[in-house]
Amino acid sequence: MNKIYNSNFQSSPLRGDRGGLRVGILGAAGYTGGELIRLLINHPEVEIVFANSESNAGNRVADVHEGLLGDTDLCFTDQMPFSEVDVIFFCFGHGKSEAFLKEHDIPANVKIIDLAQDFRIKGNHDYVYGLPEIHREEIKACQHLANPGCFATCIQEGLLPLAKAGLLTSDIAVNAITGSTGAGQKPGATTHFSWRNDNMSVYKLFTHQHLHEIVQTLNELAPESSPKYVDTLNDGYDTDGLTVDFVPYRGDFTRGIFCTEVIKLDKAVAASDVVALYKDFYKDAAFTHYSDSALDLKQVVGTNKALVHVDVFGRKVVVTSIIDNLLKGAVGQAVQNMNLMFGLDEKAGLNLKAIAF
Amino acid sequence: MNKIYNSNFQSSPLRGDRGGLRVGILGAAGYTGGELIRLLINHPEVEIVFANSESNAGNRVADVHEGLLGDTDLCFTDQMPFSEVDVIFFCFGHGKSEAFLKEHDIPANVKIIDLAQDFRIKGNHDYVYGLPEIHREEIKACQHLANPGCFATCIQEGLLPLAKAGLLTSDIAVNAITGSTGAGQKPGATTHFSWRNDNMSVYKLFTHQHLHEIVQTLNELAPESSPKYVDTLNDGYDTDGLTVDFVPYRGDFTRGIFCTEVIKLDKAVAASDVVALYKDFYKDAAFTHYSDSALDLKQVVGTNKALVHVDVFGRKVVVTSIIDNLLKGAVGQAVQNMNLMFGLDEKAGLNLKAIAF
Amino acid sequence: MNKIYNSNFQSSPLRGDRGGLRVGILGAAGYTGGELIRLLINHPEVEIVFANSESNAGNRVADVHEGLLGDTDLCFTDQMPFSEVDVIFFCFGHGKSEAFLKEHDIPANVKIIDLAQDFRIKGNHDYVYGLPEIHREEIKACQHLANPGCFATCIQEGLLPLAKAGLLTSDIAVNAITGSTGAGQKPGATTHFSWRNDNMSVYKLFTHQHLHEIVQTLNELAPESSPKYVDTLNDGYDTDGLTVDFVPYRGDFTRGIFCTEVIKLDKAVAASDVVALYKDFYKDAAFTHYSDSALDLKQVVGTNKALVHVDVFGRKVVVTSIIDNLLKGAVGQAVQNMNLMFGLDEKAGLNLKAIAF
Amino acid sequence: MNKIYNSNFQSSPLRGDRGGLRVGILGAAGYTGGELIRLLINHPEVEIVFANSESNAGNRVADVHEGLLGDTDLCFTDQMPFSEVDVIFFCFGHGKSEAFLKEHDIPANVKIIDLAQDFRIKGNHDYVYGLPEIHREEIKACQHLANPGCFATCIQEGLLPLAKAGLLTSDIAVNAITGSTGAGQKPGATTHFSWRNDNMSVYKLFTHQHLHEIVQTLNELAPESSPKYVDTLNDGYDTDGLTVDFVPYRGDFTRGIFCTEVIKLDKAVAASDVVALYKDFYKDAAFTHYSDSALDLKQVVGTNKALVHVDVFGRKVVVTSIIDNLLKGAVGQAVQNMNLMFGLDEKAGLNLKAIAF
Repeated sequence: MNKIYNSNFQSSPLRGDRGGLRVGILGAAGYTGGELIRLLINHPEVEIVFANSESNAGNRVADVHEGLLGDTDLCFTDQMPFSEVDVIFFCFGHGKSEAFLKEHDIPANVKIIDLAQDFRIKGNHDYVYGLPEIHREEIKACQHLANPGCFATCIQEGLLPLAKAGLLTSDIAVNAITGSTGAGQKPGATTHFSWRNDNMSVYKLFTHQHLHEIVQTLNELAPESSPKYVDTLNDGYDTDGLTVDFVPYRGDFTRGIFCTEVIKLDKAVAASDVVALYKDFYKDAAFTHYSDSALDLKQVVGTNKALVHVDVFGRKVVVTSIIDNLLKGAVGQAVQNMNLMFGLDEKAGLNLKAIAF
Repeated sequence: MNKIYNSNFQSSPLRGDRGGLRVGILGAAGYTGGELIRLLINHPEVEIVFANSESNAGNRVADVHEGLLGDTDLCFTDQMPFSEVDVIFFCFGHGKSEAFLKEHDIPANVKIIDLAQDFRIKGNHDYVYGLPEIHREEIKACQHLANPGCFATCIQEGLLPLAKAGLLTSDIAVNAITGSTGAGQKPGATTHFSWRNDNMSVYKLFTHQHLHEIVQTLNELAPESSPKYVDTLNDGYDTDGLTVDFVPYRGDFTRGIFCTEVIKLDKAVAASDVVALYKDFYKDAAFTHYSDSALDLKQVVGTNKALVHVDVFGRKVVVTSIIDNLLKGAVGQAVQNMNLMFGLDEKAGLNLKAIAF
Repeated sequence: MNKIYNSNFQSSPLRGDRGGLRVGILGAAGYTGGELIRLLINHPEVEIVFANSESNAGNRVADVHEGLLGDTDLCFTDQMPFSEVDVIFFCFGHGKSEAFLKEHDIPANVKIIDLAQDFRIKGNHDYVYGLPEIHREEIKACQHLANPGCFATCIQEGLLPLAKAGLLTSDIAVNAITGSTGAGQKPGATTHFSWRNDNMSVYKLFTHQHLHEIVQTLNELAPESSPKYVDTLNDGYDTDGLTVDFVPYRGDFTRGIFCTEVIKLDKAVAASDVVALYKDFYKDAAFTHYSDSALDLKQVVGTNKALVHVDVFGRKVVVTSIIDNLLKGAVGQAVQNMNLMFGLDEKAGLNLKAIAF
Repeated sequence: MNKIYNSNFQSSPLRGDRGGLRVGILGAAGYTGGELIRLLINHPEVEIVFANSESNAGNRVADVHEGLLGDTDLCFTDQMPFSEVDVIFFCFGHGKSEAFLKEHDIPANVKIIDLAQDFRIKGNHDYVYGLPEIHREEIKACQHLANPGCFATCIQEGLLPLAKAGLLTSDIAVNAITGSTGAGQKPGATTHFSWRNDNMSVYKLFTHQHLHEIVQTLNELAPESSPKYVDTLNDGYDTDGLTVDFVPYRGDFTRGIFCTEVIKLDKAVAASDVVALYKDFYKDAAFTHYSDSALDLKQVVGTNKALVHVDVFGRKVVVTSIIDNLLKGAVGQAVQNMNLMFGLDEKAGLNLKAIAF
């Protein structure tokens, strides 16, 4: 088993003593921080050098994060020995990454994987959008990576083949139901068990922030001649342009996103051709697979997989796509990206057993 | 408390001894049969004369149907004393009602409420489609009633005001998530707890049988000048006509349907005008209410209510509608219809406490 | 339907205009307050004169309490017109009732039903412990009533017949699993959906505060010659006396308490005799019933019932008892007590449909 | 990734081509069969040579077992090439293993791990009871192994230290709540989602078949001078001997067993001494850990761990023990035993990520 440094990181050698990849985690006491630690302690090539948390400094990770008792003696630290690590994961809440970088000096040779949305939209920065199914080569070469959002990952996995083929020429009706872990660990009215159990509701109707990155990808991937999608968050719905009409639901389960996307094609295409398009697009993907049968969410819960299925009715295409929001939708994909960034086996540490039941 | 006859119905007087409405139930051992009995034993104007079940004849109702212990001594019977009742509820599986009527002679003065889909589509029969929000007067006057389907009720409650106003001129993207009781009481793979718990899936994609009655209502209610919807179950999806694109989901809860309907209007309409349309349409409805706030499913679970809410984004209208599939989606609406058919208070026996949590 | 006064209570007549029982509620914005309102708006003999809540004054009850939309226009008020009511329900958190009474002057003719634990233990006060199955006559005659705790009700319903028969002469192994609504509406770590869903845990092991009232009842009910139980909360576990060994569990459901109690008799008693004891004890109870079959929790969820079942193995007796913690375990029993205190039908307003599924 | 043979096993070399351990699975289409495959495809030292299932012969494993799509091309076979494997797992239903062995000739050099209960009780056979925390050396040396039951594992993990210390001298009050996967994959009334969701019930009260193996272990482990426990399944409850009073509950979750055991000591022992006893007993255990804090079930779901916690009140000791019923309670422990039987790292293939949420 890989050795884990405790918070007394000063005694750690400059190089990992296993010769492994040295990892630091910021915001390590949150949901994504915890899930990242659960992955990394079993990753064959990684050692965690520090898990930073102001509020939990000195506490044992296994006392804070569910499911780690007996697995690690790691403690949280309030220090950030950047020079001792090869890569840092930002597990902050959204909007804090950019502020953090202004206040801290991270050595240029340390790679950064940001799980927040701060750098997902192209702009005045060098962060690569880390969706391996379309940006594998850029990811391998990058120093800084913006890990995609959970809904955004699930919805894009469902749409990428159509986008690239130039078949997206209509408004897209997207419904995506997410587990409660998507809402983070701070308790509130909509995560209260008494309310959420057996309940169903919608939120951020047509205004979910992941629309930014979804639209960015669709427009980037589409052939030049294709019509483009409007970023309705920026430009509003008073538009004659194409829109992604996204209805996010709160599900009464903890993990996973179940998504359906309905598209109207310009003209009818044989179902077998649409299926072939998907199979071809994902034939080399490490974790995204086309399913010949209809999907159910627990096929992916506990894993880093994305599964996609397509049905065709005349000119209407119905795509179903599913992921585990904390894994392929967050830290699993972050580890997949880390593997790519450091030339490791893309699946290292990610051969996870599906919960199945 | 109202007296309940046991299976030894021969000793019951021709007239109910409380002077109440005398009810017979066929298919009384199924889910809807059970829920109907749970309602009727507390209905102030009703006495159950017989609860017919071949397979359970002689068994105590309280031993078969959850939640009735201590409430009734009623037993199932294999007999059908039609002449002793004022109304019969058909709680058969779909397709059996028509066959049953061919084999049995029900007196003309006995009213029939059929919970199956056999007579929901207009044809060579005199059954009135029992959606009180549009057919109240026909229901009051009818002898035979076809009770609407659960999904069909929820989806229609969301669309009726727009249909009547002639605002439905585009394909309608419908998503509706149903509880497991919608699948009946026979155990199977998709109702196995180990599979369904925390799971999500779709089924009968674009082909759910309730499309028939939904399309029938939309076309019936629309102004003559409005375009009509295609019954894609009959005529297929190779059409340039308008379609209702219905994605039914299996939810991981037992009761309730949560539905969203997305429509594109011909031209933008002020949100306040759309809301006003809904409020006006349902101002006299006994159980359907417009909610100014976003909805969550447990607002209606355990009740006969339908709640509706609308959001508007440019030309897109997003409707949310919710019901309890066993109540407003089945036997609650059947009792509401019975109340109307016999001139009783429409709400009699239906002032139910929401489960709330 | 019964009229409900809104917060503008000044315009209400001194006597209820329906001639009904006039009710005031303090702490009306909490879980028990909400459930009480859900019951009382359908109670045929009651009108709610005021629903007091400092924090929610002016807000509509239906906007705060799930499941009331369309049922009532009642608003919360910050006023307390004691002289306009016949009875007041205290829905405070524990420990606040006594303090409240010191600061407020409630007319002597106004009856009080306290849902907190402040007056459940006999002492320098005139509150009757409101468990109708043993104190019916005292309840009918009382002015002030202390409503039993939820766990305490469920456990006592399981033990009363044995206690009265003098058969409790050993330590009692009690396990009781409660729904999340038992923890109130304030969100926290153990009511967070992401944690609680599919989870199981114990808390207040052997130290739950309801032990006080349970032990009080067992000792009060036992024949004089019987050994008595130690109140281990007061006197500790270093004792040779009899103890109630109570393991409370947090269940991953919202409503209900499922309880098993294991007792060792001094000598073997025929199972039929033990069953007969229970049937006889509860033969006149309005809501407590003996079940010949094994129990499952959803038989009582949504109702005011308590169900009890017994199995016998040699000298060991295993009792199962179940209730809905918010109804028979809280406000349902409070309304039952109200009915008794005012000479109404004990079941008025409490013929509730079981959720069943 | 390890290569998996498909059903066309004839082409497989006599030795695994990775030089790994060659495994055959009988009853591979059931719940435990599926979970075993989920584990073994990620086990670094194992190749699955055949997965036998009469009913599913020719079908792809990933089409039958949830969560394997994209992970394996393995197909079920109706053949049983015993000579090509090093070890066979029996994943039959209970009672079939013994019959199977009478009808089939398994080479003496092939090891057998039986997940059924057929050989758990000592008798005229050479099967070792595979609880590694007490029988590690026998397991390492054995040819045939009987894998413990799920409840039996969880309860024993809670009691072993007390048993060995001779502190078990009273009846033991055991409550254990199991997930629905404990009931297998055949759908039925008590695994129907509509019934089981939010429900709680008991079954096989005081008569669960795992009592046999629990009592066998307690008596075997106890010092000679200690009193012994009666196997009440064989000898009944009309006894003055010590009994294990086991109340099994059906939980409304899919995975896991949560168990409490209450014992009365002969005389008071300091809590710290009891805790020290547990920590010492499990100090070398690979998967069983003592927790200083109270437990919740999801700490172990998805893992092969058993966690144990103890509270002391006077002479009463309350033990809490938890496992995942399909892993430490079934196939995880079976793989742990396989690892021991073949001299592999005890944890190989079992460093599983807790589901946590």
